[in-house]
Amino acid sequence: MNSVIEHRTWRYATKKFDATKKVSEQDLETLLEATRLSASSYGLQPYHVFVISDQEVREQLKPASWGQSQITDASHLIVFANTKDFGEELVDDYLANVSETRNIPSEGLKGYSDFMKSKLMDLPEELKNQWTAKQAYIAFGNLMQAAAELKIDTCPMEGFEPEKYNEILGLDEKNLNAAVVLAIGYRSEEDATQHLPKVRKSKEELFTLI
Amino acid sequence: MNSVIEHRTWRYATKKFDATKKVSEQDLETLLEATRLSASSYGLQPYHVFVISDQEVREQLKPASWGQSQITDASHLIVFANTKDFGEELVDDYLANVSETRNIPSEGLKGYSDFMKSKLMDLPEELKNQWTAKQAYIAFGNLMQAAAELKIDTCPMEGFEPEKYNEILGLDEKNLNAAVVLAIGYRSEEDATQHLPKVRKSKEELFTLI
Repeated sequence: MNSVIEHRTWRYATKKFDATKKVSEQDLETLLEATRLSASSYGLQPYHVFVISDQEVREQLKPASWGQSQITDASHLIVFANTKDFGEELVDDYLANVSETRNIPSEGLKGYSDFMKSKLMDLPEELKNQWTAKQAYIAFGNLMQAAAELKIDTCPMEGFEPEKYNEILGLDEKNLNAAVVLAIGYRSEEDATQHLPKVRKSKEELFTLI
Repeated sequence: MNSVIEHRTWRYATKKFDATKKVSEQDLETLLEATRLSASSYGLQPYHVFVISDQEVREQLKPASWGQSQITDASHLIVFANTKDFGEELVDDYLANVSETRNIPSEGLKGYSDFMKSKLMDLPEELKNQWTAKQAYIAFGNLMQAAAELKIDTCPMEGFEPEKYNEILGLDEKNLNAAVVLAIGYRSEEDATQHLPKVRKSKEELFTLI
């Protein structure tokens, strides 16, 4: 089996973490750098990522997460929060970064700026929110995969109450919304689900070749 | 640089593909298997993936994709189409697969079936559509990353007209919607963007450690 498939077969949604094992500083650094390098539409990265090790905050989040033990037992809890609404500053800030990183005078980016703004600014707020959430999902999936490459376990979680997360983490006032959560750490030997065969649609069901 | 970061630094949104280079059957097989292994909420995989090599179909899709050359020049075009609406069959089909794969009598899955249905069936159709699109984004990001591991280039694309894709590919009658597109293949030497430094938010801007 090649490594591409091997990582992905090894990964599973960890139901029970070993609460005594922590992700090392160095591995965490790698995971965050991998996340930072995620693709996003136009490169805008319209989200913010909370990396939570604080036990007290996690105890608060647990009842807002259907009481799931991963919230408190994992090494770290990663909350991907998408930008709810945005104006021209989203594009302007990005292009200021492009200008600096690539040493391009900002006048040279005017056409691109106008193009992006024409595509994005007129979207209704609800569509902006949906679109930024999708970008957050790309980063979330990327982190989950990077963890598997390092043999770090993860549990991807949609089973939580975003409003309560927003309240506990003070996201509303930051124009953010808790989109999706990833618990990271190391599987407990007692987690029986690790031994179950993966359930997936067959190739025939999932793909159409044209 | 470790391989986790190396793959992700190497990857970039390829603007110009070398139209003479094709992804091998074996690599395509690996990419599809990696995609098939993608995580999804409850494992439901509520999407279908079109793998398009046919040049004529791609010529039809090109004007519906802002005329971008990647559509026709890439080795393959992958269209991720999410399930627009669903009923109990989504859960029932999945659990039939669980029952078979894990050799569990379906009576033993009744509680889990009821739980999933209670969470999913009452969602308004528009929320179902948004939720399945997010699952498709996980698979899309996973394929993009798997390609990078194999040093296969990709261009993630949201710049297309979903309605026209739906029409050309006959998705409406299949209860599917074109969510996001990935062109895969090999970068052209002439693609100047491969040499540009990556533009990303700083760690300080992107992450909050709690």
